[in-house]
Amino acid sequence: MTQIAEAQKGNITSEMRKVAKQEPIRLQTLLKRVATGSIVIPSNPNHEPIPTGIGEGLRVKVNANIGTSREYCNIDEEVKKATVALDAGSHALMDLSTGGNLDTIRKKLLDIVCVPFGTVPIYQTGIEAIEKHGAIIDMTEDDMFNTFEAQAKQGVDFAVVHVGVTKESVERLRHQHRLIPMVSRGGAFHMAWILHHQEENPLYKDFDYLIELAKNYDVTLSLGDGMRSGALYDSNDRAKIQELLIIGELVEKAPYFVLGPLVTDIAPGYDHFVGGIGGALAGYFGADFLCYLTPSEHLCLPDIDDVREGVIATRIAAHAADIARGIDRRQDEEFSKAREHLNWDVMFNLCIDKEKAQRYREKRKPTEDTKSCSMCGNLCAIELVQQYLQHNEE
Amino acid sequence: MTQIAEAQKGNITSEMRKVAKQEPIRLQTLLKRVATGSIVIPSNPNHEPIPTGIGEGLRVKVNANIGTSREYCNIDEEVKKATVALDAGSHALMDLSTGGNLDTIRKKLLDIVCVPFGTVPIYQTGIEAIEKHGAIIDMTEDDMFNTFEAQAKQGVDFAVVHVGVTKESVERLRHQHRLIPMVSRGGAFHMAWILHHQEENPLYKDFDYLIELAKNYDVTLSLGDGMRSGALYDSNDRAKIQELLIIGELVEKAPYFVLGPLVTDIAPGYDHFVGGIGGALAGYFGADFLCYLTPSEHLCLPDIDDVREGVIATRIAAHAADIARGIDRRQDEEFSKAREHLNWDVMFNLCIDKEKAQRYREKRKPTEDTKSCSMCGNLCAIELVQQYLQHNEE
Repeated sequence: MTQIAEAQKGNITSEMRKVAKQEPIRLQTLLKRVATGSIVIPSNPNHEPIPTGIGEGLRVKVNANIGTSREYCNIDEEVKKATVALDAGSHALMDLSTGGNLDTIRKKLLDIVCVPFGTVPIYQTGIEAIEKHGAIIDMTEDDMFNTFEAQAKQGVDFAVVHVGVTKESVERLRHQHRLIPMVSRGGAFHMAWILHHQEENPLYKDFDYLIELAKNYDVTLSLGDGMRSGALYDSNDRAKIQELLIIGELVEKAPYFVLGPLVTDIAPGYDHFVGGIGGALAGYFGADFLCYLTPSEHLCLPDIDDVREGVIATRIAAHAADIARGIDRRQDEEFSKAREHLNWDVMFNLCIDKEKAQRYREKRKPTEDTKSCSMCGNLCAIELVQQYLQHNEE
Repeated sequence: MTQIAEAQKGNITSEMRKVAKQEPIRLQTLLKRVATGSIVIPSNPNHEPIPTGIGEGLRVKVNANIGTSREYCNIDEEVKKATVALDAGSHALMDLSTGGNLDTIRKKLLDIVCVPFGTVPIYQTGIEAIEKHGAIIDMTEDDMFNTFEAQAKQGVDFAVVHVGVTKESVERLRHQHRLIPMVSRGGAFHMAWILHHQEENPLYKDFDYLIELAKNYDVTLSLGDGMRSGALYDSNDRAKIQELLIIGELVEKAPYFVLGPLVTDIAPGYDHFVGGIGGALAGYFGADFLCYLTPSEHLCLPDIDDVREGVIATRIAAHAADIARGIDRRQDEEFSKAREHLNWDVMFNLCIDKEKAQRYREKRKPTEDTKSCSMCGNLCAIELVQQYLQHNEE
């Protein structure tokens, strides 16, 4: 039985109970929303991650992508990245490996990742087609569904499927003057396949079969945006809107995963920040799940430090969205109370990144006025207030 | 003659001509806006910075704060910070020094800073009052105006004055339950002075005299927000709105300088990013001048790396605001055209931070498919498009 099926019967699962406890939502409301699909709890019984809710009224969640590439394949490093991402507070993790033995890597990662674990199964389908037949376009319909099922059986909690890349949206793309026609890797696999075979995307054509496969392992489907723009110039054009129309119908059956948006093209090295500005706004306007970017986005495969930086930046964006939505302000209040009393220990314990904040304060500690910081020293506004304003009030 | 006086007479100065050349604005429009004050060109004849326009219809500008503190006073380091800030593309620079010989430091910085140079004169007034009489509150009305005039004479192009901190707004602050009553250092100096002397803020009471002094050296006044909140909980409360009502009248005579806003309290170590999210939105909604924050904000006096990081983050926010306002998209278009052709040299030359982007690409270069990057290697979506989509179009 899947979470949604249980909810539709009115049954409260232990996962729902745990999610409701840690989120600003009543259990009965959660139950209703899981039943209608506006909240998902990705939880494959073969993996059993920490119950994590994503959706309407819950805190915005952050996903970190890791994985080997064709150019760099170091499994130990990917294991470390997973650990670092979890330590930094990522709520979900996706393995996007494309180099090495993909099943082995996934197994290793599934064993240590305690949060919902996602993949893009078409990557493996395409890569195995290269290995078996010589080219991505040689993948068969069966290959697509078989890979999906094998990964589901292995314990994958959620899987991105590019069902909006269809004959129709590819046709719109062909008639669209884009600076960069396509930047989605999974989308490009399907586009190439559709154009070569002149056939419909099997995952779209047989979407109900895909759902049946997913149900067997309670895999949460995530509708990927294969037509997302890779340049500001291409934003929200006909190709993208065509895909949204297709996905907009399927979204009644599975959630849509927003990536970015990036608010400028010209800041490689800072795309975690560029995506953070876009993500904070996306979250404010309703996105419930933000995919992180790292400083290495568009430049190279991220390393361990990049992963950490990416998770923290995206958690800040997600938290900003929560605050803008009017939830989750308690921690900021507690923090600011501590700041008014210059209580550094309490502040550090409430920080999104305690370690970095402590390191900075230690770097240049005040020597004279030790309660303040080395920016203002004995000219600290907070201390002046304590001396004059609050004194005046007594 | 000041820029505004010339504009009001219909005279085009060489500064206006240079600003119009580098901005998306017609010279005649610029002239009108300088005349009405919706654009300023801070340019003290005793300093003669690169003509830089700030205001309606121009690109959003970034200001970097540097300066010694009471705890850390290393003039050479401040000189280096100024150089780094300018290299990173800061459009203006403020010297907020509070430690060491303030006149000497300012002189040294004025000599090397080629962009508009700003200060908060009340800092020096307060610090000299401590040295001469023992406490900030011992500063006299004459001290306030004399410091302002001396700094103007020295070449300061713009000066922040906390004229919204008045008996009335301090009274509103006393009746306001804030978690952190005041975080503005200049604001706190005035608040303490007002409460101690039970007198009106001299800079407010004699604002027209301040303007006369400013006119003599064409110093651009900048209305500082002394009542800005230091905690989300305190945002947009009565104390802040009272100050805005006061400043809202004076804004017909001088521009208002928005700081932040910060979208969360709990991310010290990342406040350049937190302020960047707020700044991008502020810029989109009309702020023309963003004050940077560095990773060390709220923790310690920034070092050279922090200054660089702060300028870049804030430039990204400002550029995002420009794009959202519909100007300045050409560079992003050129960049994306180069990306479509995987032309890395052209991309690097268009990057906001070329050096970091190059360093990242070098860190993990692809060995097999050298045109792509080590994230996707020979699975590069852009290459797949070139192979299938564009082939299909021919």
